[in-house]
Amino acid sequence: MRNVTALKCISCSASYGSVPPAYICPACGGVLDIEYDYGAVSAGAFLDGLARPAPAHMWRYSALLPVDVGGPLPRLSVGGTPLYRRTPLGEELGLCEVMVKDDGLNPTGSLKDRASAVAVAAALQQGAKTVSCASTGNAASSCAGCAASVGMRSVIFVPRRAPQAKLVQLAVFGAVVVRVLGDYEQAFSLSAEAISVYGWYNRNAAINPVMVEGKKTVAFEIAEQMGWEVPDWVAVSVGDGCTVAGVGKGFWELQRVGVTARQPKLLGVQARGANAISRAFREGGEARGGADTFADSIAVAVPRNPRKAIEAVRRSGGAMVEVSDDEIGRAMLRLGRSCALFAEPAAAAALAGLVAAVEQGIVAPHETACVVVTGNGLKDVAGAERVAGGPIDVPPELAELERRLAEAAPEVMSCTTLR
Amino acid sequence: MRNVTALKCISCSASYGSVPPAYICPACGGVLDIEYDYGAVSAGAFLDGLARPAPAHMWRYSALLPVDVGGPLPRLSVGGTPLYRRTPLGEELGLCEVMVKDDGLNPTGSLKDRASAVAVAAALQQGAKTVSCASTGNAASSCAGCAASVGMRSVIFVPRRAPQAKLVQLAVFGAVVVRVLGDYEQAFSLSAEAISVYGWYNRNAAINPVMVEGKKTVAFEIAEQMGWEVPDWVAVSVGDGCTVAGVGKGFWELQRVGVTARQPKLLGVQARGANAISRAFREGGEARGGADTFADSIAVAVPRNPRKAIEAVRRSGGAMVEVSDDEIGRAMLRLGRSCALFAEPAAAAALAGLVAAVEQGIVAPHETACVVVTGNGLKDVAGAERVAGGPIDVPPELAELERRLAEAAPEVMSCTTLR
Repeated sequence: MRNVTALKCISCSASYGSVPPAYICPACGGVLDIEYDYGAVSAGAFLDGLARPAPAHMWRYSALLPVDVGGPLPRLSVGGTPLYRRTPLGEELGLCEVMVKDDGLNPTGSLKDRASAVAVAAALQQGAKTVSCASTGNAASSCAGCAASVGMRSVIFVPRRAPQAKLVQLAVFGAVVVRVLGDYEQAFSLSAEAISVYGWYNRNAAINPVMVEGKKTVAFEIAEQMGWEVPDWVAVSVGDGCTVAGVGKGFWELQRVGVTARQPKLLGVQARGANAISRAFREGGEARGGADTFADSIAVAVPRNPRKAIEAVRRSGGAMVEVSDDEIGRAMLRLGRSCALFAEPAAAAALAGLVAAVEQGIVAPHETACVVVTGNGLKDVAGAERVAGGPIDVPPELAELERRLAEAAPEVMSCTTLR
Repeated sequence: MRNVTALKCISCSASYGSVPPAYICPACGGVLDIEYDYGAVSAGAFLDGLARPAPAHMWRYSALLPVDVGGPLPRLSVGGTPLYRRTPLGEELGLCEVMVKDDGLNPTGSLKDRASAVAVAAALQQGAKTVSCASTGNAASSCAGCAASVGMRSVIFVPRRAPQAKLVQLAVFGAVVVRVLGDYEQAFSLSAEAISVYGWYNRNAAINPVMVEGKKTVAFEIAEQMGWEVPDWVAVSVGDGCTVAGVGKGFWELQRVGVTARQPKLLGVQARGANAISRAFREGGEARGGADTFADSIAVAVPRNPRKAIEAVRRSGGAMVEVSDDEIGRAMLRLGRSCALFAEPAAAAALAGLVAAVEQGIVAPHETACVVVTGNGLKDVAGAERVAGGPIDVPPELAELERRLAEAAPEVMSCTTLR
C-alpha cells in the first residue's frame, strides 16, 4: 500500500493517483494496472517483510500489495500452498524437472482466494458492506468465503451452467446467489449493471485491478519455495486472462526489485473450444470465441481483459497453446496417478498444455517447468467422472471378489503370499 | 521410530517388541497401542526436532512417530492446516473462545491424510507393494492419494452408499476401487479377508495401530499453533473411534513429555442415529448400533475399535454427546456463515456437539474450545445441499433482478447509492 504510486490505464496510458478514481479508466474505459515505486522496494526490504509475522501467508508480501496489511483483512488462511518439486512428470514428459504448485489447497479450493482476499481487504478498508462478482465458480466461492469470514455480504452472479458443488458452497457461505438464466457473458453484464446501480464493491477480476495483485502472490510463493529461483516455464490455464496476467506480473516484479535474476516464460493454455485469447495472441484482433469445453472455469467466450494476459505472455517470451477436452481429461488422470493431485479440469488444462508444448517443441528437454494447479477437483466432480473409471461392484464374498479382480486388476493379486 | 519401545495390547496388556508381530494382538486379537520411551523424549528434544527441515509439516514431530522420517515417505504435503483463533463462534455460543482447526485443507481433503501418510510410510519401509483399506470415503481417498504419490498400488473397499465425489477421487488417484454391495461392516469384513489372503498392507484404522499415531499429529499442531497451550475442550466427531483416540493420545503425550502443562477434555460427538460408541461410553456393553445419519463419514454401526476412543475420552475427563442430523445441518451453515468454512457433515457434527454440550452445561461459559473440522464439504455436496438454500434464478434483466432481490434479499439493496 505504502509503495503504490499510480494506477495506469493499459489502453491509453493515462495515469491516476494511488487512490483508484474508478475501477476502470475514466478517460477511455480501459483496464487499470497498479504501479509501485519499485525503486523504493529494495530486495532487502521485500525479503525483510517475509520474516515478520502475518495473519496469513500471502500478507507477508506486503511491500508489493495494494492494501494495508495492518488494517482489517479477511480471516481466511490464504496462500502457503505446497510446491511439489521433482515430480514423476519430469521423466514422463522428458523434461529436466516438472514441479506442481497445488493452489487447490487454498481455503475455498482455488487460486482465486488470493484475488478475493485482496479484494475483500480493499472493500473492508473502503468501508464497503457488500461485495459482488460474476463468476463461473471459483471466483464466486472465494469471494463469498472471504466476505463471510469478516461478516460482509456477498452477491454472486453465476451462469446457468455453474456446477452444483460450487453453488452449494456459495449457499453454505451465506452468499446471495443470483443464477442468471444465460451464459457467463450475460451473468457478467447483469452483475456490472447491478454493481453500478447498488454501489457494491466490484470483485470482477477483469475490471478491478486489485485482483491481479492478489493472484501475483502465487508467483512470489513459487519463487520463494525454490529459494528465489524460477523455473524456465510456468504453465497456467487461461479463461478471462487475469490469472496468467497476475502470475506474469509477480515474476516480473521479483526480477524488477532484484529478488530473482530472471523471469520464467509463461505458457498460457486455453481449451480449444474456448480459445478467444489464444487466437487473439496468434492472429491479433478482438478476443472473442466459443465457450465449448467441460473445463468450466476457463469456458469464457468473451474475456473482459485479454490485453493484460497477452502482454504478460509476450513480455515473458512465452507462448500460448490450445488443448482438447480429451487432452485435459488425460492430464487429470496423469496428475492424479503420478502426483496424487486431484485437479479440476481447468487446472489440469495447464498440464495438458505443457504436454502439448513439449510435443510441439516449444518447451525443450533441458528445461524445467512448473504447472500451476488453479482449482481443486472436488469442485467439479462431474468433470472428473467423464474421465475416471467406475468402481468394481462385488457382492460381499471373497470368491466373487477374486473372480472380479482377476479380470479387472490382476496386478494387485501378483503378490499373493498365502496361497 | 527410534523411541518406540513396545506394542501393547489394549485388551490383555500383552506387550510385544517394537516391530509389530501382526496388526492385532496374537494372544487375544485385541487392538495394539504403540508405546514410546517417554523418559527418553525430553521436551527439549521434541521441540528441537521441530526446527529441522522436514519433507512435510507432520514429519517434524519425528520423536513421537513410529516411522523413520529419514526413510521413504509419501510425497504429499500433509498437515500444517490453519487453526483459526477467536472466531465469532465464541460469542455465538457464549464461550470464552471457540477456535476451529480446518483439517479439510489436507491434500486429499481430510484429517485422515495424517493416518494414511504414516501407514504408507510404514508400508514403504516394510517393502509392501499394495496397500488396502475399507472406508466410507476419507480414509480411502487419503490412502489412495498417499499410495499414488509414491507409485504404490491401492485396493479400496467402499460400501454401497459412499458418495460419488469420493469414488471419483479414488479413480483419479488410480486406486482399484471395490464397491461392496452392502454396508460398511460388510465392506470392512471383505477387506480384512482379502488383505489377509493377498498379503496387502492393512490400512484399516481400527486394526492397524500406526493410524492413531498419524492422527495424533493434529493435536500436536493445535498445541503448537497455540504456543504450546491447549484449549479446555477439543470437540471431535466419532465414527470408528480412531480419530478421537488419536487426538487424545497426542495431547496426552505432549503433557507426558513436558511440552504442555495440561490436557484438554475431549468432547466426542456422534450422530444420534449412529451412536454405538456414545452408548457404550454411557451404558457399557458392546458398541453396536445403527448407521442412520447423512453424515456418512461417521455412519458406523459396528465400530471396530471403540475401546481406544472410550478410554481416550475418559482419560481426558471429557464427555460424549449425540446430535441429530438437523443439528448437524445447522452447524454446517453456522461454520459456513460465521467462519467461512465448508465442512462435510461429519466434520460439522463436532460443532453441533459443542453447541449441545454448552446447552447441557457440560461446557461452561468461561471455557475455551477447539472444533476439529475433519473433512472438506466439497467431498459430500449432496449433504450440504440438504441444508443450503438454492440460488435465485433470474433472466438477464436488471428490472427482474431488482424485483427478485427485493423479495429474497432486501438487505443487499439497502446501500443503494445511485437511486
